[in-house]
Amino acid sequence: MPGRHFLQLPGPTNIPDRVLRAMDRPTIDHRGPEFADLSRAVLRGLQGVFRTQSNVIVYPGSASGGWEAALVNTLSPGDRVLMFDHGFFAAQWRRVAERMGLVVDEVACDWRRGIDPALVHDKLASDTSHQFKAVAVVHNETSTGVTNRIADVGRVIADTAHPALFLVDVVSSLASIEYRHDDWGVDVTVAGSQKGLMLPPGLCFNAVSAKALEASKAAGLPKSYWNWEDMLAFNRDGFFPYTPATNLLFGLQEALVMLENEGLPNVFDRHHRLAEAARSAVDAWGLEFYCERPADRSDTLTAVLVPDGHDANRFRSIVRDRLDMSLGGGLGKLKGRLFRIGHLGDFNELMLSGTLSGIEMGLSLAGVPHEKGGVAAALEYLIGSVP
Amino acid sequence: MPGRHFLQLPGPTNIPDRVLRAMDRPTIDHRGPEFADLSRAVLRGLQGVFRTQSNVIVYPGSASGGWEAALVNTLSPGDRVLMFDHGFFAAQWRRVAERMGLVVDEVACDWRRGIDPALVHDKLASDTSHQFKAVAVVHNETSTGVTNRIADVGRVIADTAHPALFLVDVVSSLASIEYRHDDWGVDVTVAGSQKGLMLPPGLCFNAVSAKALEASKAAGLPKSYWNWEDMLAFNRDGFFPYTPATNLLFGLQEALVMLENEGLPNVFDRHHRLAEAARSAVDAWGLEFYCERPADRSDTLTAVLVPDGHDANRFRSIVRDRLDMSLGGGLGKLKGRLFRIGHLGDFNELMLSGTLSGIEMGLSLAGVPHEKGGVAAALEYLIGSVP
Amino acid sequence: MPGRHFLQLPGPTNIPDRVLRAMDRPTIDHRGPEFADLSRAVLRGLQGVFRTQSNVIVYPGSASGGWEAALVNTLSPGDRVLMFDHGFFAAQWRRVAERMGLVVDEVACDWRRGIDPALVHDKLASDTSHQFKAVAVVHNETSTGVTNRIADVGRVIADTAHPALFLVDVVSSLASIEYRHDDWGVDVTVAGSQKGLMLPPGLCFNAVSAKALEASKAAGLPKSYWNWEDMLAFNRDGFFPYTPATNLLFGLQEALVMLENEGLPNVFDRHHRLAEAARSAVDAWGLEFYCERPADRSDTLTAVLVPDGHDANRFRSIVRDRLDMSLGGGLGKLKGRLFRIGHLGDFNELMLSGTLSGIEMGLSLAGVPHEKGGVAAALEYLIGSVP
Amino acid sequence: MPGRHFLQLPGPTNIPDRVLRAMDRPTIDHRGPEFADLSRAVLRGLQGVFRTQSNVIVYPGSASGGWEAALVNTLSPGDRVLMFDHGFFAAQWRRVAERMGLVVDEVACDWRRGIDPALVHDKLASDTSHQFKAVAVVHNETSTGVTNRIADVGRVIADTAHPALFLVDVVSSLASIEYRHDDWGVDVTVAGSQKGLMLPPGLCFNAVSAKALEASKAAGLPKSYWNWEDMLAFNRDGFFPYTPATNLLFGLQEALVMLENEGLPNVFDRHHRLAEAARSAVDAWGLEFYCERPADRSDTLTAVLVPDGHDANRFRSIVRDRLDMSLGGGLGKLKGRLFRIGHLGDFNELMLSGTLSGIEMGLSLAGVPHEKGGVAAALEYLIGSVP
Repeated sequence: MPGRHFLQLPGPTNIPDRVLRAMDRPTIDHRGPEFADLSRAVLRGLQGVFRTQSNVIVYPGSASGGWEAALVNTLSPGDRVLMFDHGFFAAQWRRVAERMGLVVDEVACDWRRGIDPALVHDKLASDTSHQFKAVAVVHNETSTGVTNRIADVGRVIADTAHPALFLVDVVSSLASIEYRHDDWGVDVTVAGSQKGLMLPPGLCFNAVSAKALEASKAAGLPKSYWNWEDMLAFNRDGFFPYTPATNLLFGLQEALVMLENEGLPNVFDRHHRLAEAARSAVDAWGLEFYCERPADRSDTLTAVLVPDGHDANRFRSIVRDRLDMSLGGGLGKLKGRLFRIGHLGDFNELMLSGTLSGIEMGLSLAGVPHEKGGVAAALEYLIGSVP
Repeated sequence: MPGRHFLQLPGPTNIPDRVLRAMDRPTIDHRGPEFADLSRAVLRGLQGVFRTQSNVIVYPGSASGGWEAALVNTLSPGDRVLMFDHGFFAAQWRRVAERMGLVVDEVACDWRRGIDPALVHDKLASDTSHQFKAVAVVHNETSTGVTNRIADVGRVIADTAHPALFLVDVVSSLASIEYRHDDWGVDVTVAGSQKGLMLPPGLCFNAVSAKALEASKAAGLPKSYWNWEDMLAFNRDGFFPYTPATNLLFGLQEALVMLENEGLPNVFDRHHRLAEAARSAVDAWGLEFYCERPADRSDTLTAVLVPDGHDANRFRSIVRDRLDMSLGGGLGKLKGRLFRIGHLGDFNELMLSGTLSGIEMGLSLAGVPHEKGGVAAALEYLIGSVP
Repeated sequence: MPGRHFLQLPGPTNIPDRVLRAMDRPTIDHRGPEFADLSRAVLRGLQGVFRTQSNVIVYPGSASGGWEAALVNTLSPGDRVLMFDHGFFAAQWRRVAERMGLVVDEVACDWRRGIDPALVHDKLASDTSHQFKAVAVVHNETSTGVTNRIADVGRVIADTAHPALFLVDVVSSLASIEYRHDDWGVDVTVAGSQKGLMLPPGLCFNAVSAKALEASKAAGLPKSYWNWEDMLAFNRDGFFPYTPATNLLFGLQEALVMLENEGLPNVFDRHHRLAEAARSAVDAWGLEFYCERPADRSDTLTAVLVPDGHDANRFRSIVRDRLDMSLGGGLGKLKGRLFRIGHLGDFNELMLSGTLSGIEMGLSLAGVPHEKGGVAAALEYLIGSVP
Repeated sequence: MPGRHFLQLPGPTNIPDRVLRAMDRPTIDHRGPEFADLSRAVLRGLQGVFRTQSNVIVYPGSASGGWEAALVNTLSPGDRVLMFDHGFFAAQWRRVAERMGLVVDEVACDWRRGIDPALVHDKLASDTSHQFKAVAVVHNETSTGVTNRIADVGRVIADTAHPALFLVDVVSSLASIEYRHDDWGVDVTVAGSQKGLMLPPGLCFNAVSAKALEASKAAGLPKSYWNWEDMLAFNRDGFFPYTPATNLLFGLQEALVMLENEGLPNVFDRHHRLAEAARSAVDAWGLEFYCERPADRSDTLTAVLVPDGHDANRFRSIVRDRLDMSLGGGLGKLKGRLFRIGHLGDFNELMLSGTLSGIEMGLSLAGVPHEKGGVAAALEYLIGSVP
């Protein structure tokens, strides 16, 4: 199809040409001095993005591997983990935990709103014998478009003085929505390369607090590939215990420069502004947000319900086949009920306008009942807010 | 600035990644067999795009060089050329002719509509002593957004049986708006790489009829770089008389494959559809088309007047600096009075929607009086016409 | 430094421009139809390269992850595995096995020659109670330059009718040295992307026999990321259970086309020819091969001992800093004692000549005693063997 | 064919990945502020490379166009030009001059040695009526491998106080062999992009002295595309009178950074060193240099005669088809008699070693009589000279 494809998934996201070009060069010796400079630059840059003074570990792997890494490095067989049924990816993480031999206490939640920090407080406060070795939460649920209040959750954990480790998935929020590993008391943060970091998929990350590192010494789950200890030992000199995904690291270095040049606060503002514009459009179309609590609506994606009797996936196929745009679909139990608009990463006002235009046209083409004027509403919002 | 720049000039246009990547490889020996295969493929493909059985000549150079080549190969010092004052680029071509030592009879025209074929008829019919050695017209005036009826002009030339050569500039129409070198009786067609061919600037073309080739044998203007005879002699074996712009030829080969895959009729339909949508937006904004005759409005660009008292270039700067989009400005006497929207090349519905959104926002930001609803009108049109 | 770096490690190898350019494009929706076509093409192509009718599984990850995957999918805690102390990477794999909770019976071997198949026979024949659940061997030891006779090992396993699974690492031999997963009776083959497949690091592979798949159903080691069952279920429709490393798959698709175009037998012949030339040079220099048994010398790399009293790493630094070439060093106990020449992947006669020239110059510059004439000997061999 | 092609023409040369990647991005608005920054950087950088305080003009075009530009901007129809029959490209330039309507006084020279400055002196001294309006010399004759002593020629012109303009072609010497436009009294220097500047072909250059610029005001040859006046007027603000070859300018910017980083004196030293090594090989092979005077042998290419009865082009075909290397052939009257080795641009010791190895093997494969040991001699030289 002619022209540029609009890749408006909530990840993988549009990769800047600069990043693609940075990866488009010969691999270098991963045991040589040039590589050591590269990895030091990258590891330092990642600390800035995760807002941590501790270590960030980079694996060749998908973000799912980052979940596994967070668990196997900190826990022992049979350990209890407090998790929340608040979305498809939260459920996937739970499944990883169970497969690794952990016992998950999953708290039922309303998928359509963020986890109530008070609920976390109650759960931990009532666990006087400290059965829970970890609490795991997804910051930004990519399946629902709900952002959880991690700072608040971190605070209640601190308030209860419960010793559980705090594990957070920021796969679809990092470098897009404010996040502070250190200040918010997180022990392990899990992320991937293909969203706010504007890279292809293939890298995953663990930011690791001192407390998590201490816990890793006693953790009994078998681990080798994901072993932090090896990583940290090699990273100290700028190397890796096994062959790293060098060309993705080239891209990461470039992406980190771009983020630093724009400035993280500006990156967050931009994502918020574009998200507000997208929400203006959804409101104008008279469609329903999957996330019911406005304050919890994500700045990186918007999940939109289609009216009963309509199939969101048929709508998505029409948008893809006739308008050359990829939108996210409903996952698991939400299949066919909603579509998800990714508005994160290397993204701007005109790309958003094109995206929303494609949705507005697609709704008509697919016969999904809606009011006109979504794009107009978004433009109105943007006119008032563009820097 | 984050996200993708919208390059909505009437050329250079957005270059497909496939074309950029095709150019991104080592230069090859321009005297070796691999090169001969490349140039044969390219020269054959160009014949299809120009709709000619005759030769198409490829120069390393800008389209202005193509104008010069058309003249120096066919004419002698002091020859009279019939030209029309119908736009900035027509005037530039006239200037080239004068600089080369030709005598130009320039007919005053209304820049806001296409040349009346009857006028050409009158001029030639009254030239009974055949003073005019050539008639030169721009198919699609990039400065005004007016498309001339070249088929009709060709017909009146034939009707008068005047021996003048027919020279046509298709710089901003080739591979975007229907054009037929052979059927329309054109002798030399001049084009460049950076518009409908979706390449960077750096190549120019002459398609050459048998009559033009015959004329070249007697043409007395000095010529070396642009000499057709050398070119054709070398091209016969797949080579060039001097070092060709090999990497641009790599890109051209890829672009020709893309055009062939889409099919020229589909390419033209797409450009027409997107142009109609753009015109719907302009209508809805209540702004004035520079081209007054609707049938003459170009399918590759739209020139839009800003109301008196407003500066089109201030508007363009705002669009560029705040919304990261490049629009064309008014050239020569039109400076500051209009802006030009490029909607050609590797372009689709969502890119157009983003473009028009940027204009609608920019009009507000710049305080240019307009009605809202341009984007909405374009979407309405597209919904009814998208394949 | 000006000019092209010579990356003559035994991997990562020189990546063809075609492969780099194939990766240099926007990521696509990993849940869309275009992706399904991509993954089906890649999975089918891999079957050809592994010479298997069974499944090949592709992970985002480093080859070390492939080792772990082979183990956790087939074995249970406390299972005994027969391994051989025949090189640095064999030892690394052993370490992975132990970390995952397996019991390794490691047979001491001479690192300077291939494992004697008779030794494998004896070990298995004497294990009448079938304690060994798996036998794990590295086909081509990247640390020593020794190639093991996997076909013969497979045959003795068959001869003993021992039920142990046969696990083989082909990280530095796949697509370079003949290998046949099915015919040689291998159950799990482990590979990575960055050697004969001519890609950057970041993908690892498991080829899985029906027997291994059957074993996986009862295997008790915890597994999630590496779980074959999920992979195979998703792969059936062209998808992956988690986000795949899409851009590396773009590159893999291109590399598989290149291998198919050249033809695997030609690829193997080429590697053999270039290896013979490299060995001619080493002989002429009067230096000692680390691999003492000529028939076991690898066609993808050559490990060369430096005379006592000389430091191979000093030599390598000089070659890197003054001649811009990366050579492999001695790993583990071999540190400083040898250097390793990679001659695999996208490689040809002139690249090899440049490589050997760099070594011959480097030996002089570093003051390593040697005879002149290595390059001359290699050229002599190549003259007689170039196709 | 597998592995990297060796492009050892005396241009186009091997393009660094950095330069290719710099060109591999969307074209920008050539009338916008980002472009003005680009062209200012490039024009400033070129002054450094030409060693001039005057203007350097950049055209989209091949170097042949640069010859034409130098002539049409400075001369009038019928003007006499002093030229020398010292090689194929000198003869091509003469042909351009004649075609443009100039009268050429061509002095017969020995192609196998540089022009004797005394000869230039005699010609000018005896032209007491100052018939010669220009003297044109090729600095480095790409067809013969002879470098002319331009500084000396400039001195004798100054000594004679003859008012003729001094025009010099540095197509295959710029940025490789020392050259000083200002200090050596050159009025117009002609160059192209595809040799020492490490770019694809497609740009040509004129460096223009104040005297040449003054002459251009009275020059009567017709000119439009090549007109300096327009160029300089537009360049003043960072723009061009017609669409520039933007993506080649991206590459040029990167190449200029690379040259500046290495430092021109180091660039010249490197070329000299590699040329000496190549000459050592030719000597050892017992083959004859086309350039008989050792001091005149070029540092960017070496032209080597094959013994009588042998066809240099058959040798070149064998090298190309069996060893994947492109060498230059004999041009014009030298066809089949010699081959030319390009050793310029982005080039280093190991690339040269591979190149010479390919020649040594090719000589054997083609049955061209020679002594062995050319590569060995080159390595010996390099060992003693590598920095």
